[in-house]
Amino acid sequence: MENMNIGHHISRQFNEELEEVRNQVLMMGGLVEQQIADAVKALVEGDSNLAEQVIENDRKVNGLEVAIDEECTQILARRQPAASDLRLVIAVIKTITDLERIGDQAEKIARMGLHLVDMERPKNHFYEVQSLGESVIKMLHQTLDAFARMDVEAAIQVSQQDEKIDHEYDGVMRQMVTFMMEDPRLIKRSLDVIWSVRALERIGDHSKNICEYVIYLVKGKDVRHTSTEYMKEAVQEK
Amino acid sequence: MENMNIGHHISRQFNEELEEVRNQVLMMGGLVEQQIADAVKALVEGDSNLAEQVIENDRKVNGLEVAIDEECTQILARRQPAASDLRLVIAVIKTITDLERIGDQAEKIARMGLHLVDMERPKNHFYEVQSLGESVIKMLHQTLDAFARMDVEAAIQVSQQDEKIDHEYDGVMRQMVTFMMEDPRLIKRSLDVIWSVRALERIGDHSKNICEYVIYLVKGKDVRHTSTEYMKEAVQEK
Repeated sequence: MENMNIGHHISRQFNEELEEVRNQVLMMGGLVEQQIADAVKALVEGDSNLAEQVIENDRKVNGLEVAIDEECTQILARRQPAASDLRLVIAVIKTITDLERIGDQAEKIARMGLHLVDMERPKNHFYEVQSLGESVIKMLHQTLDAFARMDVEAAIQVSQQDEKIDHEYDGVMRQMVTFMMEDPRLIKRSLDVIWSVRALERIGDHSKNICEYVIYLVKGKDVRHTSTEYMKEAVQEK
Repeated sequence: MENMNIGHHISRQFNEELEEVRNQVLMMGGLVEQQIADAVKALVEGDSNLAEQVIENDRKVNGLEVAIDEECTQILARRQPAASDLRLVIAVIKTITDLERIGDQAEKIARMGLHLVDMERPKNHFYEVQSLGESVIKMLHQTLDAFARMDVEAAIQVSQQDEKIDHEYDGVMRQMVTFMMEDPRLIKRSLDVIWSVRALERIGDHSKNICEYVIYLVKGKDVRHTSTEYMKEAVQEK
């Protein structure tokens, strides 16, 4: 009996460790989401203090990645998880890599914001950055929700938003090229806008990666590099 | 005695599995290296057949990532490795993610090559893409060497090349902006060149990531997000 109790206790502790790691991922995700929102706000409003703060906060994002990574390695070594527990740990290791890179993109946008402070503000108040920023933040938020609830259907739905974001990005790019051709004095400013929307577009890609890890985690199938149709099929199989 | 033999046999089999995974990573690395070289060649020489081939071959890169990933998961589940074996498997899981993304960048360069085929060729024959391409391929090759030999000193040396690549990239960017300002008809072509050199610059970042996994693997220390000085200190500690 005592052994069983110990066994039960160890297992509960293990569950708590996995739960703790999941919570840390969500915390890191929340921080990264805030970083994107702040970076976009700093750029749109020309707020260099906020931009500096985003750049400074990227250390926190990096620190969380290293800490969670370390925790995962220790769980693998101590607990030697199998099946779905193992998949959870691997999915976390991959997810935090993407979250860290989303953080890098937020930092890039903040740096573009600092550049743009010294230039003439456009009449549209960087509407394209604001708009794409909102789409991307929404997508990341829903991605983290899908991760928190281990919701495969949601993960598939959300990963499809990436196409919409790519489409919006392509539109902005065409517009910027037109601006530059019409008035070469706008080239430098337009390039900074281009870097910023490209960073946002890449955040969409990273969110999609995370959605795919959620599907892998729940279904044990690798759905990367496959079409949406294949993804749907994969999760419908029993 | 029999048990020991079995033990020995299992261990040798395990070693062979690890060795096999390492070889697969090097094979994937070699393919990715070739993809960059071909993408740059296709762009510089305006060879649309070669560009199409690079785009097609990206499937192979993706396939290798999925296969090696699967192999690593199985090793973790079956062998429950500890200490340096565990670090090797985690380092491999991370490395192939970066190699796959390097592959994506090569594909992007090939796509830019296809765009550029229809435009007037510049007098310098895309010298800047060629030159940065050579630096980046050299860096990736040395990175894979450091990985193959588990050579920490080499990994540190190679990771420092990323700064040189960033510097070269900044120079090309400034030059492109000047071109566009001087002659707005060159904007579209210049943007394609900009996307290409940016893809090369990001390959440098991914190579640096892989160098850091080598250091982590050998030393068991996480050196990401730290300065070169810290990296050197970390590996000098006994």
